[in-house]
Amino acid sequence: MIAFHKIRPLMNRVLVKKVEPLTKTKGGILLPESNKDQLNFGTVISVGPGRHQENGQLRPVFVKEGDTVLLPEYGGSKVTLADNQDYYIYRDDDIVGTLHDPTK
Amino acid sequence: MIAFHKIRPLMNRVLVKKVEPLTKTKGGILLPESNKDQLNFGTVISVGPGRHQENGQLRPVFVKEGDTVLLPEYGGSKVTLADNQDYYIYRDDDIVGTLHDPTK
Amino acid sequence: MIAFHKIRPLMNRVLVKKVEPLTKTKGGILLPESNKDQLNFGTVISVGPGRHQENGQLRPVFVKEGDTVLLPEYGGSKVTLADNQDYYIYRDDDIVGTLHDPTK
Amino acid sequence: MIAFHKIRPLMNRVLVKKVEPLTKTKGGILLPESNKDQLNFGTVISVGPGRHQENGQLRPVFVKEGDTVLLPEYGGSKVTLADNQDYYIYRDDDIVGTLHDPTK
Amino acid sequence: MIAFHKIRPLMNRVLVKKVEPLTKTKGGILLPESNKDQLNFGTVISVGPGRHQENGQLRPVFVKEGDTVLLPEYGGSKVTLADNQDYYIYRDDDIVGTLHDPTK
Amino acid sequence: MIAFHKIRPLMNRVLVKKVEPLTKTKGGILLPESNKDQLNFGTVISVGPGRHQENGQLRPVFVKEGDTVLLPEYGGSKVTLADNQDYYIYRDDDIVGTLHDPTK
Amino acid sequence: MIAFHKIRPLMNRVLVKKVEPLTKTKGGILLPESNKDQLNFGTVISVGPGRHQENGQLRPVFVKEGDTVLLPEYGGSKVTLADNQDYYIYRDDDIVGTLHDPTK
Repeated sequence: MIAFHKIRPLMNRVLVKKVEPLTKTKGGILLPESNKDQLNFGTVISVGPGRHQENGQLRPVFVKEGDTVLLPEYGGSKVTLADNQDYYIYRDDDIVGTLHDPTK
Repeated sequence: MIAFHKIRPLMNRVLVKKVEPLTKTKGGILLPESNKDQLNFGTVISVGPGRHQENGQLRPVFVKEGDTVLLPEYGGSKVTLADNQDYYIYRDDDIVGTLHDPTK
Repeated sequence: MIAFHKIRPLMNRVLVKKVEPLTKTKGGILLPESNKDQLNFGTVISVGPGRHQENGQLRPVFVKEGDTVLLPEYGGSKVTLADNQDYYIYRDDDIVGTLHDPTK
Repeated sequence: MIAFHKIRPLMNRVLVKKVEPLTKTKGGILLPESNKDQLNFGTVISVGPGRHQENGQLRPVFVKEGDTVLLPEYGGSKVTLADNQDYYIYRDDDIVGTLHDPTK
Repeated sequence: MIAFHKIRPLMNRVLVKKVEPLTKTKGGILLPESNKDQLNFGTVISVGPGRHQENGQLRPVFVKEGDTVLLPEYGGSKVTLADNQDYYIYRDDDIVGTLHDPTK
Repeated sequence: MIAFHKIRPLMNRVLVKKVEPLTKTKGGILLPESNKDQLNFGTVISVGPGRHQENGQLRPVFVKEGDTVLLPEYGGSKVTLADNQDYYIYRDDDIVGTLHDPTK
Repeated sequence: MIAFHKIRPLMNRVLVKKVEPLTKTKGGILLPESNKDQLNFGTVISVGPGRHQENGQLRPVFVKEGDTVLLPEYGGSKVTLADNQDYYIYRDDDIVGTLHDPTK
């Protein structure tokens, strides 16, 4: 058995923890309560180094640690970590968009 | 829970709000009233940065914020925002065309 | 609702209005009368800017406004405009050929 | 209605009229009589300009007007012209080979 | 009707006449008698000019006239010539290998 | 029969021995006991030289001998070695991520 | 009929004779006896020249004559030679790995 602590995704993979949007705001987004599988928002926990393209260059991942992301309806692989919470792995080009607070 | 306000699409994705064409004009376009799912016109709310091509260059998105677009019959992912209106995400190369007022 | 007047196709799309060939001529082409869906000739109404290739260059559309085109048996998306006539959208590389009057 | 006289294929398409081989000769080829759909020889009537490759160059069509060609068993789109004879459109890379008279 | 005498394959196609291996030799190959369809050895009758690659270069055909070739179990299109023998067309990259007499 | 001792994977293949995570730690990962087929963590035993890309360059393998890797739910080919333990072969781009001890 | 003696594979094909591993050694590999179809180890008899890549270069075959190779569970085409033993043709990128004696 092996003790380990941190997942570093390979290629353009992104480790995401699903979250519920906090509250409805002016121009904001509110989703009804649902179970974690149905949530389609998440926080980026860690990202891979990027994807090698055919011309030999590394294309960096489109999102960064801490980003709030809009996830696609299907896809993503569930990963179970020690804190009994579900994490999900996505390819960065499957992530739909990022969410931003316009007041900041 | 997280409060957020604005969706910034990734890659060549386009956030669209479906609209009904206003009126029949000379050489204009008139669609019968229908529910939002069946509408195939929309206004572009926001666009992603573009798509990385194999030669390493970023190809910008074909449409811009505010454009009225003709949408394909199938495709597009519905996104629910806080204003209880449906938005849709398309890849820009799935959008059929843009609509223009020739009098301007 | 929004009033608009002109469709500008994106990428290498072509907006086509289906037509019947006029008459049988020496070496000409005559098609039996049929409904618009079955017609496989059309006039090009407008064309997109072209298709971006992997080397970053824009390849222009193969046909131009006013061309009479031979359409494939299958494919093309119907678009309804305000004049109650059906228009069709094709990718230019799906169009079979162009028709020409050899006397000109 | 529109009068037109000549089909100019787009891209690497080839307009072919199916023919029966004339006679059995020394080292020649003889096919039994059959209906036009089953014939797999043809004469090239006209050819398109060629196919754009990913490096931006135009690759010319492999056959030319007047060539006798061996056609594949499946494929090709029938086109009806005013002389009540059937023509067929093929992509040039679907054409199997060309036939030549070794005495010339 | 048209008299013709010789098939010149297009692209990287190869015209093959199926043959039976002659006899068992030391280190040689012997196949049981079978009908022509089941034979998987052949003699190359003629070859095309090669295949255009994406970089614009022509890659010559891997085999040459007169080669004895090992054919794949499936694939190949039958062509009937005037000598009432069956010929087969293969793409050169579907041909498995060539056979050689090590004593020469 | 042949005696051999070491498998050196070809291309970007990776030879993996599945392992169970040791213990739950702060921020660590704990998986319930399961049979080897269901385990999705492993130790890299050996890796191939990498994958040749279309531009002719060799892209090295993303993981190295000794790495603890998170494996995908599906995929991987079982290989039985003399020590009666199961090994698995993966393509490196199918491996989800690597696990790291943040205290080191 | 034609006498021939040696198969020279085309492209990146590899001619393999399946073998059983000899014996269990320290860190070695032992497979239970099985019929030839189920064996997944083999000796390389001959290899092709390599595979042409899109940039025009020839990528040599990954294995060489005499190598002991680990074969994939599925794939490979059986070829019957005159010595009544079965040979198999694989593409080199389908071969899983090579086996080596670490004492040498």
